[in-house]
Amino acid sequence: MQGNVLVVHGGGPTAVINASLYGVIEQAKESGAVDKVYAAMGGSEGILKEDFLDLLQFPEERLKLLLETPATAIGSSRYALEQEDYDAMPAIFQKYNIRYVLLNGGNGTMDTCGKIYAACKESGVTVVGIPKTIDNDIAITDHTPGYGSAARYIAATTAEVGVDVKSLPIHVCVIEAMGRNAGWITAASALARKNPGDAPHLIYLPERVFNEEEFLEDVKKLYDEKGGVVVVASEGLRGPDGEPIVPPIFKCGRATYYGDVSAHLANLVIQKLGIKARNEKPGICGRASIAWQSPVDQAEAVLAGREALKAAMEGVGGVMIGFIRDENEDGHYSIHLKRIPIEEVMMYERIIPDNYINERGNDVTQEFVDWCRPLIGPELRDFIDFHDERKKLEQ
Amino acid sequence: MQGNVLVVHGGGPTAVINASLYGVIEQAKESGAVDKVYAAMGGSEGILKEDFLDLLQFPEERLKLLLETPATAIGSSRYALEQEDYDAMPAIFQKYNIRYVLLNGGNGTMDTCGKIYAACKESGVTVVGIPKTIDNDIAITDHTPGYGSAARYIAATTAEVGVDVKSLPIHVCVIEAMGRNAGWITAASALARKNPGDAPHLIYLPERVFNEEEFLEDVKKLYDEKGGVVVVASEGLRGPDGEPIVPPIFKCGRATYYGDVSAHLANLVIQKLGIKARNEKPGICGRASIAWQSPVDQAEAVLAGREALKAAMEGVGGVMIGFIRDENEDGHYSIHLKRIPIEEVMMYERIIPDNYINERGNDVTQEFVDWCRPLIGPELRDFIDFHDERKKLEQ
Repeated sequence: MQGNVLVVHGGGPTAVINASLYGVIEQAKESGAVDKVYAAMGGSEGILKEDFLDLLQFPEERLKLLLETPATAIGSSRYALEQEDYDAMPAIFQKYNIRYVLLNGGNGTMDTCGKIYAACKESGVTVVGIPKTIDNDIAITDHTPGYGSAARYIAATTAEVGVDVKSLPIHVCVIEAMGRNAGWITAASALARKNPGDAPHLIYLPERVFNEEEFLEDVKKLYDEKGGVVVVASEGLRGPDGEPIVPPIFKCGRATYYGDVSAHLANLVIQKLGIKARNEKPGICGRASIAWQSPVDQAEAVLAGREALKAAMEGVGGVMIGFIRDENEDGHYSIHLKRIPIEEVMMYERIIPDNYINERGNDVTQEFVDWCRPLIGPELRDFIDFHDERKKLEQ
Repeated sequence: MQGNVLVVHGGGPTAVINASLYGVIEQAKESGAVDKVYAAMGGSEGILKEDFLDLLQFPEERLKLLLETPATAIGSSRYALEQEDYDAMPAIFQKYNIRYVLLNGGNGTMDTCGKIYAACKESGVTVVGIPKTIDNDIAITDHTPGYGSAARYIAATTAEVGVDVKSLPIHVCVIEAMGRNAGWITAASALARKNPGDAPHLIYLPERVFNEEEFLEDVKKLYDEKGGVVVVASEGLRGPDGEPIVPPIFKCGRATYYGDVSAHLANLVIQKLGIKARNEKPGICGRASIAWQSPVDQAEAVLAGREALKAAMEGVGGVMIGFIRDENEDGHYSIHLKRIPIEEVMMYERIIPDNYINERGNDVTQEFVDWCRPLIGPELRDFIDFHDERKKLEQ
């Protein structure tokens, strides 16, 4: 029996959400049992507006661009669905002969996914989740599509900034990384290091209470030693009182706006240590970077899209596709896919475990680096520095 | 007669300063008349400390890394030389049989270059300048090595952020670009555009007095139309009073510290328009980006290095190597090199001319785009957006 597929994107973009969409399309073509792959244009609102576009009508050479297009090519939203919205969906799906609904997103979208699944259970529509978030904070899965690329971006960028700061070592440079509650991206900056002494020199994660005194002590010591210090800090750092370390600037409606953590830390260094400091906040430049897209991440995102449709066509709904890392004896990296009941996923936000953070809370451990390494893809470029070359000659 | 070369790097790094160094090394090898290519380690201070490293002792495969190593592989400094420092140099150069001194840097370094030239005139040492600055603010030359890569970075990054903001169009995103007095980098963000309506939607240059009212008016209008707006603003914007638009945060010694322009503008949008806004400030991530290094810029940087040594070996000192753009009938891009008397270069800081800025002062003109286009190298990636694909189908 032929049926149609509907793909819905939710929440903030990543560098590979479109790669998962490409996987769904390719899987649909190969299955020979799908008439149309509809996109809900503009996210979940697109469902209610019945704003569907069949992607199978576009030629393969256009569709292939999905693999290297950041953000989402079909739009997304942060629209909060109400119960009546869910109730309306089965009839809409029936109208368009949609039998498989795939929701691609983070924790919030997986919650939506579970609710659409519940609303459609009786109607024969199968609902499956595809994980996606740069934040890597979804439970159970080893990691999420989107994270590997965000990790590659921050590692490569920190390496480049590190070389810059080292070559004119007159200041402290604070790089702000995305991830408000979970420090996975911030932590991945450690992958910038190739040699002892390489940047980043200090890493501050939201999983640890930020201690201003220790921070200034650590920066001062490193500055005295090196002249140039690179700090990578999460945008979500909080102090002992549980409040963001940056004082709120103003309130607007229900939202409170804070300044940038990186600017705050740079200002602390200038004011309290009298050391020149600056801050970089690449922000969205990171999650949208195709130059630093991880090929591993891209391939896994395609795979997750394919598997989601496979599961749906086998009638396995109410699950999210997850990655389980294989424990290979020779240590090589591989994963297998798992269909994880959506309610297990929705239970918690995954933060960095203790064994990945060093004791002083200003760096990650080798265990984290080993875990993260395969996700970012090929080795980063080698740079040359003649101070180091000279040292090698002298040895 | 054999002689040695000394290369000195000054000021802030770029993505291709090392490429010019590579050009010098290759030219020296090919000349057959150079024994050693010394690097002054750590910039001009390295001269006074006689901290010289012969780069010809390293194998070609290591030296080749210079082409794709950001910042400077031999170090730089912002050390201000005194008259007695200049006076000491001829004897140092003689001691090491240094006959050709090449200074690579921006306006400040060219000033130093002129002074070393004057100090060495009698001693038979030839001093030549190699231009280098992401800011593109050196006079007479059509553009400077380092600019094309900084321009490619901001164009590509703005394109990626533009796609991100468009796919979840719920806010105004302000990207801050480097270049405090000259808006060349900020302006290059316009190269992100491929189709009408593409980001950046507004561009604010330091060459124009920033008008807060007009800014808010323009943002509001675009937000009402699109939902997602991308603004690119120079870090050096100033108001009608000539002061930076960001109020000073604090003073430290002689320096006054200001907050980030991008954060300031985003806050204005939130507070005065009640529209969600965020700011990105890639900063050093831009000037150190090898992923977005412009191949045209790299090739020209190598060329400038080669030509500097050629000029020096021909005994033509007191000049800076500049680029003159050829006026080709078929419009194709090419340059020829010019040896520009250093005192002409030192006369002024080159800012964006009026014909490159639109009347309202919130964008560049097509003339600027045409001028800048060849410098950033190959076409940027095509992205796919199914809202646009649908429109094309409907036409």
